[in-house]
Amino acid sequence: MIFPKTRLNLSGDRFTVIYRLTGSDETEAQTKAEGICLEQTVEVPLHLLANDTIRADVVGRIESFTTLADNHFEAAISYALETLGSELTQLLNVVFGNSSMQPCIRVERINFSDALLQQFQGPRFGRAGIRKVLGVNKRPLLCTALKPMGLSAEALAGLAYQFAFGGIDIIKDDHGLANQSFAPFQERMQRCAAAVNEGSQKSGYRSIYVPNITGPANQIIDRAFEAKQAGAGGVMLAPGLTGLDVLRQLAEDDSFALPIFSHPAWQGSLVSHPRQGLSHRVVFGQLPRLAGADATIYVNYGGRFSFSRQACRGIVEETGTAMGQLKPIFPTPGGGMTLAKLPEMIEFYGHDVILLIAGGLYGHGPDLGKSCREFRQFLEQAGTGVVQ
Amino acid sequence: MIFPKTRLNLSGDRFTVIYRLTGSDETEAQTKAEGICLEQTVEVPLHLLANDTIRADVVGRIESFTTLADNHFEAAISYALETLGSELTQLLNVVFGNSSMQPCIRVERINFSDALLQQFQGPRFGRAGIRKVLGVNKRPLLCTALKPMGLSAEALAGLAYQFAFGGIDIIKDDHGLANQSFAPFQERMQRCAAAVNEGSQKSGYRSIYVPNITGPANQIIDRAFEAKQAGAGGVMLAPGLTGLDVLRQLAEDDSFALPIFSHPAWQGSLVSHPRQGLSHRVVFGQLPRLAGADATIYVNYGGRFSFSRQACRGIVEETGTAMGQLKPIFPTPGGGMTLAKLPEMIEFYGHDVILLIAGGLYGHGPDLGKSCREFRQFLEQAGTGVVQ
Repeated sequence: MIFPKTRLNLSGDRFTVIYRLTGSDETEAQTKAEGICLEQTVEVPLHLLANDTIRADVVGRIESFTTLADNHFEAAISYALETLGSELTQLLNVVFGNSSMQPCIRVERINFSDALLQQFQGPRFGRAGIRKVLGVNKRPLLCTALKPMGLSAEALAGLAYQFAFGGIDIIKDDHGLANQSFAPFQERMQRCAAAVNEGSQKSGYRSIYVPNITGPANQIIDRAFEAKQAGAGGVMLAPGLTGLDVLRQLAEDDSFALPIFSHPAWQGSLVSHPRQGLSHRVVFGQLPRLAGADATIYVNYGGRFSFSRQACRGIVEETGTAMGQLKPIFPTPGGGMTLAKLPEMIEFYGHDVILLIAGGLYGHGPDLGKSCREFRQFLEQAGTGVVQ
Repeated sequence: MIFPKTRLNLSGDRFTVIYRLTGSDETEAQTKAEGICLEQTVEVPLHLLANDTIRADVVGRIESFTTLADNHFEAAISYALETLGSELTQLLNVVFGNSSMQPCIRVERINFSDALLQQFQGPRFGRAGIRKVLGVNKRPLLCTALKPMGLSAEALAGLAYQFAFGGIDIIKDDHGLANQSFAPFQERMQRCAAAVNEGSQKSGYRSIYVPNITGPANQIIDRAFEAKQAGAGGVMLAPGLTGLDVLRQLAEDDSFALPIFSHPAWQGSLVSHPRQGLSHRVVFGQLPRLAGADATIYVNYGGRFSFSRQACRGIVEETGTAMGQLKPIFPTPGGGMTLAKLPEMIEFYGHDVILLIAGGLYGHGPDLGKSCREFRQFLEQAGTGVVQ
């Protein structure tokens, strides 16, 4: 044999990935599933392997294979926990590294094992933690975004003050605010943090400022700590732009310990093909929660974006379902929300949601403070059961 | 106005993104293009903006709009250089942050401006630099991968020695080798680096070992330097797993200064939808080159993967075309290559290519050293013009 016979002392613990396969018949799909077992692990043809632990346990294992409909199949493939070496980057790699480049394979869900989940700390705050920070027990939370790109740090801080004074719970940077000359990160972040805290003190509402710390790999952590020092109440990070693992690094850091908001920028392409890529529930539900995001921002159904009701439902499920010791996190839909749509949103999402309303708030009327109070009042009534 | 009128002193320099749009008619597609101009920059409706620099210059600008065929359109949209704040993460964001979540938009190409390219150092070695390291002037280069996952570091080093002794130019880790207990990164990397250097000395061929440094965000740079110290000749990184910017960080680091190989894992989903996502040329050509990869690994056409000849051609074009001061880099196709396919590969790719042959080498025959020599001999003959 080319490869020496290898004996490994593995734990026996395995996690499972549910793949949706498309093929002209069951035999073709079955062959594809067998291909995934190799592709995602040893990446050599089976006949080259010795009759050893690698062949028996390192190669992926088809746990079940189901015909869903004509040409549509589902394979549950399990992998040994040890293939991951406790690394999130390697988890992504084993789930869909090379198979992402093969036709007609879609990752529908990851069934984590408890042993795998114990290797992750997950969200530090989660839903309950963010509610505690904001002092809001029950109602949906309200989030807005500072924009547009091009305003000065001072002008953005002016908006931030109005939002805080108007009672918006979470005031975040738009994800387009990076470190541009017109509103450099440090100045913007310091001014906005101060403005939110001032507006909040004056109004009596508790609000937090959440700056966007997405940026160069060697500056993200620094920006996070600068934000904390300036009095920000959380940070936002777009893992599609930065990589997911830096979110985990930050979430696990006891000396940081602020809520983390995950932003979906760039990741739409991962979910846009109905028969390839990954499901919305994996990309915007399971993965950010595993990494330790306390809230996962995504685009709402029915607006200008392409996510369906069903896709949004899948994300929401993964934010709240049992997941070992990992806390439930907030689904944070945004895009095209107006006051008129709030009843439908509350009906669909219930109370455990952060509603991200930016354009709908800016466009609601000429008096931003008045608009804020209207939105907040609506949610407070919803929270006491007046609306629902 | 909600937003204060803003005067910005912009350079006037703009870069352009070519978007392919699908729509039921030209009016719909035109509206979509106008939507992108806002979505990717200010993210508020146009009527909310004052009559100022933000509206005039920060909002994206449609430079041209073309009907390609029934229902297919192309819009060239330019953005002010200043929207990027000189950050690669923000470049990705402006190109396709939120629009990736909208239907029927595909990024076909980025037309960088010279001023933008001057903000990036790009590849340190490029094609000429890697050729110099290996002492090979003309012929296609030969690369293979150490696998399978599950072998011990010692066994992998044994393979590495045989490859180096057999004259393989570049001996890299399989991307599935991370930091697993059966072959921990440090031990594997040190053993393999030593084995390659030993095999290389004995054979007289110059070979380099390229370990996979993909891993936790806070360990990637350390792994790179450990590899350098151990005598590795380059490193491999999968930006889909780690984020692209850490590759840039490493490429720009004068104290590192080794060739960097970009691996495509996870990124297949970005390119799989023909009318959404991004083109292969952007993801596997333009972006890794901009970030500073010296070689871009991707999956070859005609094998078990889904990339077409045309997609591969697009990638190759972007590795070599004029791109400001940025050096040309090596296209590095892999997947399903055998000795029998080499003539076709050389015809398609020419000599400026690294051919990644792993399964085809392991499966070529029972004597790995003999297989290596056959492949190498073939390429040497090709390099002297005997074959072509």
